[in-house]
Amino acid sequence: MARTTGSDGEKTEAALREAAVSLMARHGYEAVSMRQLAAEVGVQAAALYRYFPTKEDLLFTLMREHMEGLIGAWEETRPLMAGPAERLEAFVGNHIRFHVARRHSTHVSNMELRSLSRENLTHILRLRTSYEKELRQILRDGVETGAFLVDDTGLTAMAIIQMVTGVIVWFRPDERLSVDEVTETYLSMTLRLVGAETKNIKNSREKRDVHAFDEFRAG
Amino acid sequence: MARTTGSDGEKTEAALREAAVSLMARHGYEAVSMRQLAAEVGVQAAALYRYFPTKEDLLFTLMREHMEGLIGAWEETRPLMAGPAERLEAFVGNHIRFHVARRHSTHVSNMELRSLSRENLTHILRLRTSYEKELRQILRDGVETGAFLVDDTGLTAMAIIQMVTGVIVWFRPDERLSVDEVTETYLSMTLRLVGAETKNIKNSREKRDVHAFDEFRAG
Repeated sequence: MARTTGSDGEKTEAALREAAVSLMARHGYEAVSMRQLAAEVGVQAAALYRYFPTKEDLLFTLMREHMEGLIGAWEETRPLMAGPAERLEAFVGNHIRFHVARRHSTHVSNMELRSLSRENLTHILRLRTSYEKELRQILRDGVETGAFLVDDTGLTAMAIIQMVTGVIVWFRPDERLSVDEVTETYLSMTLRLVGAETKNIKNSREKRDVHAFDEFRAG
Repeated sequence: MARTTGSDGEKTEAALREAAVSLMARHGYEAVSMRQLAAEVGVQAAALYRYFPTKEDLLFTLMREHMEGLIGAWEETRPLMAGPAERLEAFVGNHIRFHVARRHSTHVSNMELRSLSRENLTHILRLRTSYEKELRQILRDGVETGAFLVDDTGLTAMAIIQMVTGVIVWFRPDERLSVDEVTETYLSMTLRLVGAETKNIKNSREKRDVHAFDEFRAG
């Protein structure tokens, strides 16, 4: 398939992707037609097929780029010379920031695995597995160094990913908390979940001790 | 609308619900037609409209009964005279058992809020809020008695619900773990997440101390 190059072609392709993600997130992949998508962007259906020969090509491209983007963002931010707790914080922080900025794309990626062909599904699942392996490795390193206490690294990795991806279900940046505040709270929950002693826990316990001491002096 | 009563009518209605949940989980609400649903169950489309005047009535009924079922299951199992940790374990156990047994229905309930009318959406969100309040109350009680250490009860409640609902994304009962084993692991993750001292943590720390002691005696 010939691909239109140059800035107009690129703009059209970007507009098509954006419209596709938005339509699919609102109506579901099966309910969105190529005709409807072309109309949304204001191109002929024939032009759309030049970029994406089938609707599934389009879905696969969206889901592949979502996962490649997530893995790329992690590769750029991951600290290499750091302990497990610091690496876990970086992983969770990157995961939340990436997904909060891509609500529709996350929605489509999580929901429409059912709509991929077996071959494309295998490709996406391999990307997911390689991403999850990064987290499992951090958890295993934490268990080995005694920094974490984890019963099952596989289950714990899934639990953390589900928990932090879930932020996009309810979080709206204009509400009472900023992305940074939400991330901070999720970081300390994650650290507690893996049995790491967090600064917050230490702070709270220290505060409690101070109160106890004050009462002792007053008494 | 007249509703067919008696055992045949009830059987048809149950078959329609089951088929609707399964079709919607696989294809998405918008992509499933009433005609397709009637054909799946082997009734005339006209008969289907006697039970559910519109497709959205059907979706609303499925989502309302899902939430009422979840709240009902919790009301039956919740321990009234128990501490926060025990109540939290009961809540998480009930939540996992209920959702693992209703994968399709959970999928539809989580995905298709977008397809409800404003009035029906408000009704479903009220049911969700009343369910989540139960968890927030447990967390608050735990903080008050000093059993839990939680930074933000609202965020923590959402995190726990997302984490444990996520079990249905990957869990298949015929794999390496049983529902009970998975539940057990999620219970101890949840207790750690809220800063409760769990038996598992204590056991592991005791085991570690035993090793240290053995080494001491050997040395």
